[in-house]
Amino acid sequence: MNLWRHIPLLGHLRGYGRADAAGDGVASLVVTLMLIPQSLAYALLAGLPVQYGLYASILPLAVYGLLGSSRTLSVGPVAVLALMTASALQPLAATGSPEYVSLAMLLAGLVGVISLGLGLLRAGFVASLLSHPVVAGFITGSSLVIILSQLKHILGVRVAEAHYPWQTAVNLVIALPQTHLWTLLAGVIALALLVLARAPLRKLLQRVGLRESAALLASRLAPALIVALSMLLVGVLGLDTHLGLRVVGDFPGGLPALSLPALSWGAVTSLLPAALAIVLVGYVESVSVGRTLGARKGQRIDPNQELVALGAANLAGAVSGGFPVSGGFARSIVNHDAGARTGLASLLAAGLIALVALMATGWFAFLPQVVLAATVIVAVSTLIDLKELRRLWKFRRGEGALMALTMIAVLALGVEMGVAAGVVLSLAAFLARASRPHMAVVGRVPGTEHFRNVKRHDVQTWPNLLLVRVDENLFFANAQFVEDHLEQALAAQPGAAHVVLIASGVNGIDASGLHALGELKRRLASRNVTLHLAEVKGPVHDALQRAGFEKDLAPGQVFLTTHQAVLALQGQNSHCASAQAA
Amino acid sequence: MNLWRHIPLLGHLRGYGRADAAGDGVASLVVTLMLIPQSLAYALLAGLPVQYGLYASILPLAVYGLLGSSRTLSVGPVAVLALMTASALQPLAATGSPEYVSLAMLLAGLVGVISLGLGLLRAGFVASLLSHPVVAGFITGSSLVIILSQLKHILGVRVAEAHYPWQTAVNLVIALPQTHLWTLLAGVIALALLVLARAPLRKLLQRVGLRESAALLASRLAPALIVALSMLLVGVLGLDTHLGLRVVGDFPGGLPALSLPALSWGAVTSLLPAALAIVLVGYVESVSVGRTLGARKGQRIDPNQELVALGAANLAGAVSGGFPVSGGFARSIVNHDAGARTGLASLLAAGLIALVALMATGWFAFLPQVVLAATVIVAVSTLIDLKELRRLWKFRRGEGALMALTMIAVLALGVEMGVAAGVVLSLAAFLARASRPHMAVVGRVPGTEHFRNVKRHDVQTWPNLLLVRVDENLFFANAQFVEDHLEQALAAQPGAAHVVLIASGVNGIDASGLHALGELKRRLASRNVTLHLAEVKGPVHDALQRAGFEKDLAPGQVFLTTHQAVLALQGQNSHCASAQAA
Repeated sequence: MNLWRHIPLLGHLRGYGRADAAGDGVASLVVTLMLIPQSLAYALLAGLPVQYGLYASILPLAVYGLLGSSRTLSVGPVAVLALMTASALQPLAATGSPEYVSLAMLLAGLVGVISLGLGLLRAGFVASLLSHPVVAGFITGSSLVIILSQLKHILGVRVAEAHYPWQTAVNLVIALPQTHLWTLLAGVIALALLVLARAPLRKLLQRVGLRESAALLASRLAPALIVALSMLLVGVLGLDTHLGLRVVGDFPGGLPALSLPALSWGAVTSLLPAALAIVLVGYVESVSVGRTLGARKGQRIDPNQELVALGAANLAGAVSGGFPVSGGFARSIVNHDAGARTGLASLLAAGLIALVALMATGWFAFLPQVVLAATVIVAVSTLIDLKELRRLWKFRRGEGALMALTMIAVLALGVEMGVAAGVVLSLAAFLARASRPHMAVVGRVPGTEHFRNVKRHDVQTWPNLLLVRVDENLFFANAQFVEDHLEQALAAQPGAAHVVLIASGVNGIDASGLHALGELKRRLASRNVTLHLAEVKGPVHDALQRAGFEKDLAPGQVFLTTHQAVLALQGQNSHCASAQAA
Repeated sequence: MNLWRHIPLLGHLRGYGRADAAGDGVASLVVTLMLIPQSLAYALLAGLPVQYGLYASILPLAVYGLLGSSRTLSVGPVAVLALMTASALQPLAATGSPEYVSLAMLLAGLVGVISLGLGLLRAGFVASLLSHPVVAGFITGSSLVIILSQLKHILGVRVAEAHYPWQTAVNLVIALPQTHLWTLLAGVIALALLVLARAPLRKLLQRVGLRESAALLASRLAPALIVALSMLLVGVLGLDTHLGLRVVGDFPGGLPALSLPALSWGAVTSLLPAALAIVLVGYVESVSVGRTLGARKGQRIDPNQELVALGAANLAGAVSGGFPVSGGFARSIVNHDAGARTGLASLLAAGLIALVALMATGWFAFLPQVVLAATVIVAVSTLIDLKELRRLWKFRRGEGALMALTMIAVLALGVEMGVAAGVVLSLAAFLARASRPHMAVVGRVPGTEHFRNVKRHDVQTWPNLLLVRVDENLFFANAQFVEDHLEQALAAQPGAAHVVLIASGVNGIDASGLHALGELKRRLASRNVTLHLAEVKGPVHDALQRAGFEKDLAPGQVFLTTHQAVLALQGQNSHCASAQAA
């Protein structure tokens, strides 16, 4: 057994030196500072008591550090999966109840088992179910849903739990008159500071002489500073009692107890669709971040190993009070830019967070919820990408519509149904497009051996000979269309005794395509028309031979080139016509 | 409004003459003789009282005759849809109860609305969801299920209703000791006669001098004769009372009352999946039969008009005591061979069946169930095609496995889940295959402008230049694979400063493919490698331009040919290496 292959960290540690250790050490500190407020906020977003955010940032981090094929991806709680967790659990148990917590662990366990299974089966291709427009629409839609879910904290109101995002919006409008003004003020200040801490702070720091990377790092850590400042202010000035700002409050410190989540068949089957959606979304996001980081240093990501590592990380969360985790975009970039060289940075960060959980939870009692909500809002607002919608629309209406529909589905039906709708729509759109491939009746460019579309070029044709080129693979989605289209072309040229199907654009053929060719051959034969093939590519030719199709085709032939087909077939009828360009 | 387009029969009747009328008249008589026992048997198979078979053969036949784009397709009750009807309704109501009958009409209504909707939206491409191996597996599997369901009549036993086909098999084995020997004897005789009436009778009649077509027709009508004979024997000799043969018994005559099926939201939602499956299966079967018949006379089928016509026929059934109908294979061939020229044959047959329903139902009281069961078994046994399984397996393991799995799913889980499993498996298999396209690193065949795979040919390569050909469309299923594969190829040639992606095999690109190209370009750029494209086809080039990709690619270029790319890029590094064939 090759440990290096199964535990990539061991491979990454070959030749590990002092500079690597320094980089990993600094990065682990920086990531810890960033992760602590994030993990608390995402636990609340997932509907869990805050300490579970810390729990989900200990073992899962360490496990990914050991098993991940990416050296710098930072795995842990992320906003979108927290939202998906809440949406999966809310119909099943009261938010924050012990039963709810246990279901969150079970969900992480299911996510872990499915990921691990797909990874071991090397079935990473399932991620291709999420096409780019679907991912873009899903991320933008769920960022909007997350912002919507945080507005109650900014307004300082309590609203009824809602199953659909639009209900949340309605509830917020109804609760508007109850707005708590001090909370709103604090929220606006926090939002303003957090926004200023982004590009403006970075530019300012660069202007006063910091290097670009240092300025970037400082601006990424500013939210942690703002959170710390707010805790200090609330604690020292007693803003929670004097102004009525809601705070996180005391929560139990210590490490999570190791325990298996309660198993029940009913819970498993009702959580399964959500678990599948979380696996897909978490994996697609992780791999895309990991690839971006890896490319900077020419390091490759192994998609199947990523599935295994994410699966193991989620299983670790399932037995230690966690909820579904994945690779976080902003956090991974911070980890990378702060100098992380290997997964040791993640192992160290996990250790630091364990220390915080053991010794320093008291500090967070004064953390105002409104500030946490503001950090979440500012963090996810960067994920909203409406420009992509315009670009896709310009590229192809259908792809733009796919992104818009996925976004709308997420907003109207919730995250799970949004993913499902996106997958179904993208398959339907693909089938609709693939079912109408480009086909052209061609003729010979005079004096050459080139054959082009009769509609676009002034070419030579023969009344007894129909030459049709198909520019797509022959497979189940288009087999019937190709059959129909050829019969239509033949109806327009009733004198044809030979049909040559030019397969230069056919990269592959499946059984449905083969069946269609066979049917076509028989139908043409019943009208004394012979079907031939030309310019068949190697893999298609192999497939046709395996199926014994060349024999079936007789008296039709398979010609190497269209030119040879014309030489062989037009001799039988020497009349010659010429079509004009349309 | 163009009536000829919307009511194809009007178009078909242009120039209608005496010969046409004679053909349609004879065919309608022959089809009626064949349809009457079939419709009774399929009503029983669907779990309905026998008279509903006649009802489903009146209005639906007439409506399809008017609206169908096929001139000779015979629409009415068919075995597979009767089985699917039973499987959809049995969990919802007691077999044969008034509620069951009403649900059958509702199911026909849903099938009608969905078909009509798909036809009006011109969405016939949804049928492509059923790939050839799935259809083949489904038809063979459900034929076996139908035979299994008829064995109780042959054995003369009563068995408990079962939800899954394998339960039916178990129940039959348990009931074996109760076998009624006279019924079994009658069944074996009927089966033997029906089998002899097929090829052996046809060959005999040809040998005694009948023309091939006449012999074929006679052999097709033999089952009706056998049924009539059995009625006569039972009636005259009183075999039902003396031997205990179960007969159809008296059933109410008269035409079906026109009425809307009872609508309930709960019933609609629970019938919806079955209705969708029935639409797909019914449509695919109808169109395939219609095409086969049409091709003999060069008549085209309009797939979307077929959806409209089948939808209208099912709606007609929904208001007149019918259950889901579709084009029948054997019956349509008989209709065609007996001389049918237009849909008038179907209209006349509908009239004849209405006459039978009005006046002659008493004749069928003595029809033995065992004989009906034997006709069903012999009819569907011709649909079992295990040779196809072997052919598909030889062509490509995956396609054979797809047929086998669909068949097994039908037998183990029932018809509906079988269709669903087939669709899901065929999409999964497609994605798995499409996600790993063929890619080749190529080099120049010395002295030419041809570029071939370095692994297969002795070609010229350049250390600063990586030429990769991709033989598949760039779309969501393979975008990531192509990205990964290119980075892998680059890792194997670390000196490369330019990567040329040769797109001669790319017929199309979607947003995911475009996104992958953009990511690849950025990742390569971060390592000072430039991405170029070559041999981009017209439609792909158009798409790239719409997305403004050519600007994004700079300093990379889009070359017309690979040769031009090499001329432009190798000048920057004049070293030259040569790879040997592997």
